[in-house]
Amino acid sequence: MNEDTATLRINGQRLWDSLMALAAVGATPKGGVCRLALSDLDRQGRDLVVAWGREAGLSVVVDQIGNIFMRREGRRPELAPVVTGSHIDTQPTGGKFDGNYGVLAGLEVVRTLNDHGITTEAPLEIAIWTNEEGSRFVPVMMGSGVFAGAFSLAHAYAATDADGHTVRQELERIGYLGDEVPGEHPIGAYFEAHIEQGPVLEDAGVTIGVVTGVLGIRWFDCTVTGMEAHAGPTPMALRRDALQGATQLMQAVVASALRHGPDGRGTVGMVRVHPNSRNVIPGRVTFSIDLRNSSDALVDQQVAEVEAVARRVSTELGLEVQIVEVSRYAAQLFDADCVQAVSQAATRLGHSQMPVVSGAGHDAIYAGQVAPAGMIFVPCKDGISHNEIEDARPEHLAAGCDVLMQAMLERAQQQ
Amino acid sequence: MNEDTATLRINGQRLWDSLMALAAVGATPKGGVCRLALSDLDRQGRDLVVAWGREAGLSVVVDQIGNIFMRREGRRPELAPVVTGSHIDTQPTGGKFDGNYGVLAGLEVVRTLNDHGITTEAPLEIAIWTNEEGSRFVPVMMGSGVFAGAFSLAHAYAATDADGHTVRQELERIGYLGDEVPGEHPIGAYFEAHIEQGPVLEDAGVTIGVVTGVLGIRWFDCTVTGMEAHAGPTPMALRRDALQGATQLMQAVVASALRHGPDGRGTVGMVRVHPNSRNVIPGRVTFSIDLRNSSDALVDQQVAEVEAVARRVSTELGLEVQIVEVSRYAAQLFDADCVQAVSQAATRLGHSQMPVVSGAGHDAIYAGQVAPAGMIFVPCKDGISHNEIEDARPEHLAAGCDVLMQAMLERAQQQ
Repeated sequence: MNEDTATLRINGQRLWDSLMALAAVGATPKGGVCRLALSDLDRQGRDLVVAWGREAGLSVVVDQIGNIFMRREGRRPELAPVVTGSHIDTQPTGGKFDGNYGVLAGLEVVRTLNDHGITTEAPLEIAIWTNEEGSRFVPVMMGSGVFAGAFSLAHAYAATDADGHTVRQELERIGYLGDEVPGEHPIGAYFEAHIEQGPVLEDAGVTIGVVTGVLGIRWFDCTVTGMEAHAGPTPMALRRDALQGATQLMQAVVASALRHGPDGRGTVGMVRVHPNSRNVIPGRVTFSIDLRNSSDALVDQQVAEVEAVARRVSTELGLEVQIVEVSRYAAQLFDADCVQAVSQAATRLGHSQMPVVSGAGHDAIYAGQVAPAGMIFVPCKDGISHNEIEDARPEHLAAGCDVLMQAMLERAQQQ
Repeated sequence: MNEDTATLRINGQRLWDSLMALAAVGATPKGGVCRLALSDLDRQGRDLVVAWGREAGLSVVVDQIGNIFMRREGRRPELAPVVTGSHIDTQPTGGKFDGNYGVLAGLEVVRTLNDHGITTEAPLEIAIWTNEEGSRFVPVMMGSGVFAGAFSLAHAYAATDADGHTVRQELERIGYLGDEVPGEHPIGAYFEAHIEQGPVLEDAGVTIGVVTGVLGIRWFDCTVTGMEAHAGPTPMALRRDALQGATQLMQAVVASALRHGPDGRGTVGMVRVHPNSRNVIPGRVTFSIDLRNSSDALVDQQVAEVEAVARRVSTELGLEVQIVEVSRYAAQLFDADCVQAVSQAATRLGHSQMPVVSGAGHDAIYAGQVAPAGMIFVPCKDGISHNEIEDARPEHLAAGCDVLMQAMLERAQQQ
């Protein structure tokens, strides 16, 4: 680390202004953002950030799953680049910071280095990963997942949204179906800055979360099938009410998480009732199950408990219960050197810090499977994310961006 | 009753053929019918039945809520007509018989009288009531409800479907916005033939249900509001998960019905989760509540029990719970003379019979508030209705139609 870069600071106002400008694309009346993956608004968001990248002198490539890599050349172009990034797709009622912060923090790092005419040894790159949220197309973290070989390009291409559009059709339609083979893009090291999306840092009054690892996640689709019938004349004893079984399972999901605290999580986020008519006993209910914990063994216990309730409900209520695993992410530790680089950068910059485990999935998980990776968390208001009122303080965002820059510079000069 | 008409029998095959022909309009792959109120398919169904009515020599008028009255003139046109009818709109996954049977049984009565050149003293009429099902537009039993003055024409006109179309727009669009003021149409007596939509007659091996009254019904919309947040990083203790509260209430709805048997009913048929994303804790859940029982006092007790659970859930989970009454129908007894006319007709025809209470809402409820009314039930397979596999035996349908004809003739000659 030379003296010039040790005192370097990013421009917090410029970072904030970029965040607000991108948040205007798909802005919701309640102050959030709805920019679903591969929608017209996603295209507008991508076009905007790519234009900013080109203004900052970056070259741009797109791979076959729509991941974008914007490159700032290094003194030694043959070195694998130090990459940062995140995603710019949002939840249907998402916020301004989730994902967007990580991408624009990378852009602010580049702009700051440009301002000071600093050239790194290794190249630097900003990655914009496709469909991290998984709201419109499953699986979640699609772009980074294909990149890491977690699932195939063909599998991702075939995913359909509720209207029957496929990922491949939508990539082509919005002009982000690139040529590069996913995964062939070299990554020397990967850092991702992100709002915490939880309340831990704010509660502790700490600015920088040094992320040591990620909770294990298990996702399921559950279908409960009974018999639909008229709500009035069908006596209770003769019913096979799919929703009555489903509500017992939904409660079991939460109960299993409470039993295996403090890191246990259990959520039913998505429910569909068929035929969904006021005076018809539901014949079929489908819903999502999301179980998380700090070790895979604890997640296994939660799964076993929910499955036991499913068997009981099936027998007692005469319902068919099907639970299908949709995705699984093992609990994961980040690269020790990258974690240390983040921690040391926070120390040098004088920001308070603490080690944290991420409860959410991030592109850094997949990036961390093909390259050394680390993450930087900053507090968000009330720990709220995936919500239109998601908020973060400009000084925290700037501090996280400074830590990101220092960590990237250290890796880029080392190589 | 003269000798000529006492031996008269309807043509069961012709009735069945009409039912199958109408069921082809909006037929579903699973053998049911989807013909939602005021849709293009509803228009096609109306056009078909009206054409059959005109072929049978009936004159047709339409009122301002789209109710259709098809008239067979009597020897004394000044007498109030003896009316029969039902509805031809269906549930999204409805069957071939619910509603349609009552309308086409009326048509078969007319055709049979035509075949034998019989003229009644009072005129006979067939009513096709608008939007009985309430699947697309609330309130349910809309056409007969406006007719009886249960709610205003303006209220019905303003009802919107999920896409924002109003009843008035849709009536106009399908060409069934008539001139007659609803309720000004005279009714001397009203009979409605219907499949039972429950398992009681089939279990008892009885052909004719002489309907003495209708269960009291109370409908509510319930909204549970919490705070949406990211499913991963939000610890269980800091959540305000709207679905967790909602599932407890949904179970309370069923429990209250079980406590107040044998006629208690409790159903949640419709659920909407917001934002309905796999990895977002639901911030808001809205669902329907349907409570029924044989007396209004019992329904009141069920309501009170559900409301008590709502208060507890609100306090314990930090959720806002709002329960709004959407519709209420008092438990109701049918006109003693009309009930007796049905029973005597069944006796004369030699069909087995039993008194039953209807668990479902019917247009006859509202018709019974402005005229003497009675209903005739026939068994349906496994008691299943509001389902694509709804089925009924041709000989039962014919028997119910014969009873209908005899009851109508008795009233039409009396007057």
